[in-house]
Amino acid sequence: MDNSEIRDVIMIGAGPSALAAAVYTTREDIDTVLYEKSTIGGLAAITDMVDNYPGFPDGIQGLTLAGYLEKQAERFGAHIDFGDVSALRDAGDHKIVTVDGAEVKAKTVLIATGSDYKKIGVPGEAENYGRGVHYCATCDGAFYREKKLVVIGGGNSAVQETIFLTRFTSHIDLLVRSTIKASDILEKELQKFVDEGKVTVHLNTQTTEIVTTDRQVSSVSAIKEGQPVSFDTDGVFVFVGLKPNTEFLAGSGVELDDIGLVKTTTKMETNLPGVFASGDVRSGSTDQIASAVGEGATAALAIREYLDRLHMIA
Amino acid sequence: MDNSEIRDVIMIGAGPSALAAAVYTTREDIDTVLYEKSTIGGLAAITDMVDNYPGFPDGIQGLTLAGYLEKQAERFGAHIDFGDVSALRDAGDHKIVTVDGAEVKAKTVLIATGSDYKKIGVPGEAENYGRGVHYCATCDGAFYREKKLVVIGGGNSAVQETIFLTRFTSHIDLLVRSTIKASDILEKELQKFVDEGKVTVHLNTQTTEIVTTDRQVSSVSAIKEGQPVSFDTDGVFVFVGLKPNTEFLAGSGVELDDIGLVKTTTKMETNLPGVFASGDVRSGSTDQIASAVGEGATAALAIREYLDRLHMIA
Repeated sequence: MDNSEIRDVIMIGAGPSALAAAVYTTREDIDTVLYEKSTIGGLAAITDMVDNYPGFPDGIQGLTLAGYLEKQAERFGAHIDFGDVSALRDAGDHKIVTVDGAEVKAKTVLIATGSDYKKIGVPGEAENYGRGVHYCATCDGAFYREKKLVVIGGGNSAVQETIFLTRFTSHIDLLVRSTIKASDILEKELQKFVDEGKVTVHLNTQTTEIVTTDRQVSSVSAIKEGQPVSFDTDGVFVFVGLKPNTEFLAGSGVELDDIGLVKTTTKMETNLPGVFASGDVRSGSTDQIASAVGEGATAALAIREYLDRLHMIA
Repeated sequence: MDNSEIRDVIMIGAGPSALAAAVYTTREDIDTVLYEKSTIGGLAAITDMVDNYPGFPDGIQGLTLAGYLEKQAERFGAHIDFGDVSALRDAGDHKIVTVDGAEVKAKTVLIATGSDYKKIGVPGEAENYGRGVHYCATCDGAFYREKKLVVIGGGNSAVQETIFLTRFTSHIDLLVRSTIKASDILEKELQKFVDEGKVTVHLNTQTTEIVTTDRQVSSVSAIKEGQPVSFDTDGVFVFVGLKPNTEFLAGSGVELDDIGLVKTTTKMETNLPGVFASGDVRSGSTDQIASAVGEGATAALAIREYLDRLHMIA
């Protein structure tokens, strides 16, 4: 590509939200390029089974769904390139994106870089991602009906998701590194499940390993108040925070919320005209593939409208 | 069902948005009933080919997609009943919905009744719905690359969609019943395409019939300034307005916008706590299946959060 050329739209990321947006823009002959730094299909591609993406009644393998989304975007002419975006700059009528050190220009930009779940970094965690080790209760909780779980974390989201998971599981061991740091109402609600014997809370408990037997997660090892302990389990949920992929927006002028997610309107517009955001990177996102895809479609229509307006003024 | 029972959630409508929401709520064991007055799957079910619903790279028949969505919602336990909802009333901790004259109660309600495209009511219109006669340029415009089209309408949306359709078509006859009533900027932009010969505007032209030859739309008959005229065409797009299905909300207290669509937050909350809205019935909706489905998922998570809060207070 000639770097002096100005594209219609650059999409940063090639997860479900950007791929859905690209289906829409390219189907309308809007020149579209996507830059992805690691996996086409994003978190969906590394999810074992997706049970709740509407349209697949019996569920679908995450990798298969990612492949379908990619194929559909490419069918209509999307260019998907591998590249690491390190900066975004607003030059008024166009935007400048730094990809692998080189500058590329576009009239509009869609930020769809997603968020990563924070990891605890113990042996067995990465190896069992999505098959025994989970980070999203809404996505994967229903796979654990009448099963035993270990939940790791002690903040608001860990407590909230533990309460949520009780609707499926027979028992939860909640491993908290130090003490619980959640709102009073959540702590009080958790206590009901502790009293019922559905949840056992282990304070000052540092997880050391997720153990597998016959390639299935079977237990979690930890140090509790200086002593080694072990918890038999069918699966592990980790809730120790979210890391939005927005470091590259430092100095861009794009407004972020307290945890670093991009603020948008309901039309997916950021505070910078011509710059949009959708999917898990968006403030208020649900971290669900269905919502990410829907927001991608919504963003694409807003991008088209913006480009049409640019064209009419010109 | 015992009518004195209070359901967790009543969804009004069983189109893509409600079905997607139901996949989420039922998968989490939230007791869910949907009331549909005509077609399960909504407008999607009566669309011939859906090309841009993400996940189906080669497109999918609308009826097939609707069937998949229904099957997926029912797999997790959604109850879909036929019934005409005529009223919604807020009783504080629960809501009362009038279905076929009988009152049913629920802690939460999702309004997902969609919108209907206004019809012109001529012979050939209903018979060719979705196969030669269309109401959504974003959905179906791309099927008419290098083809001739007739567009019917004269307001802002008719002019805007005509401009949009020029990117695909070889020529458009725009049939306007009286005169064009669109913004100056749109009229000026339209004039460019008239000057190029891509669009011909016919004022004071009343459409009388959509004519088919060998079961394909072939021409449109009209009366232009008292004289019968005919326009050869490959397809027809009608843009004479949208009719939101919200009459039953009269007196409910749910806030609507100027054209009768339901106002919501980004979390799909209406102004009444416990009442949510998603899909084409929502103010600002994109009238796209992808967005409707995404909003359904987002609404479901907000409904769960609301129910959890109710439960914690109790």
